Amino acid sequence: MVEDSPSNVHLALVHFPVYNKAKEIVSSSVTTLDVHDIARTCRTFGLGSFYVVTPLKTQQELVGRIVSHWLTGYGAEYNPTRKEALLLTRVENSLQDVVADIHERCGEEPKTVITAAKTYPQSIDYESMRQELQKAEPTLLVFGTGWGLEKSIIQRADFVLRPIEGRSDFNHLPVRAAIAIIVDRLFGIR
Amino acid sequence: MVEDSPSNVHLALVHFPVYNKAKEIVSSSVTTLDVHDIARTCRTFGLGSFYVVTPLKTQQELVGRIVSHWLTGYGAEYNPTRKEALLLTRVENSLQDVVADIHERCGEEPKTVITAAKTYPQSIDYESMRQELQKAEPTLLVFGTGWGLEKSIIQRADFVLRPIEGRSDFNHLPVRAAIAIIVDRLFGIR
Repeated sequence: MVEDSPSNVHLALVHFPVYNKAKEIVSSSVTTLDVHDIARTCRTFGLGSFYVVTPLKTQQELVGRIVSHWLTGYGAEYNPTRKEALLLTRVENSLQDVVADIHERCGEEPKTVITAAKTYPQSIDYESMRQELQKAEPTLLVFGTGWGLEKSIIQRADFVLRPIEGRSDFNHLPVRAAIAIIVDRLFGIR
Repeated sequence: MVEDSPSNVHLALVHFPVYNKAKEIVSSSVTTLDVHDIARTCRTFGLGSFYVVTPLKTQQELVGRIVSHWLTGYGAEYNPTRKEALLLTRVENSLQDVVADIHERCGEEPKTVITAAKTYPQSIDYESMRQELQKAEPTLLVFGTGWGLEKSIIQRADFVLRPIEGRSDFNHLPVRAAIAIIVDRLFGIR
């Protein structure tokens, strides 16, 4: 691992509580491909761990099956780089459990960073966040699925980044693409 | 569409000629998800079109079925934003055919931009390429699948960018994640 890898920065993909299209609070489904792609992005940029957050037991089991297929099953032999990426993956019931897990592993509660379209008192631009992260304090990047994170999570965050905006009236990036872009903006070598 | 959208910049995802793991020249398979994700990335950043390049008729038909499902089938009604993204998608036999198509549509042959790990006389950094693209000349961003583009394509390119490097010894980003990062580096609003 490269010396300056941000191994005390962690990433959580949250499936509850998030909004659906009708702005109701729901638990979204885990997308197998998100797990693979985001694990590879986290591993490439040297993040410490990747948490899949869902309270649903069947969904937790699904993630467990994906991970164990690549860690110990046929997949481990067939594709060892996939194994290396998925080694970072953990499953938790809730964002509170993720924070508690990091606290236990690092001895400190992580600062939380989220993205939101509106401006908040904790809003920060990407360049300033990139510098903030060089302090190497435990940090958790939190991403929502579905139609976005339930708003109390945003209000409690330490830092709020703007979502990725393109150059068109169309803003429908897959979450795995938005995460790749944001992690590159924060940690990419230019 | 936003005024400064790079609508004369196009993107090609090439399935032949590319290398396989054993460094043989092969035709890789089209991945349905690449088509969806890359179309959404192109649409978000305002690119003009997204070419899927494969000489295999069955693979061309597969792309045609994906696109028509979302453009005219049940999908168009179910998910209109998906339709909007896939409107950009075109299928061609070869990179030469893509260049000819752009020439015909724009009245000019596009400059080609590729990524490669080695340094070439045409190598350029991202910031300079970003400025180069503001000239608004027809440009084609070319990406390979499998284990990378056949080397003569690289030698003939007008510009060569370095691939995305993370902060670890692991460099296995999905092509759809690498494309999202590169398009953001070239066109993202910061």
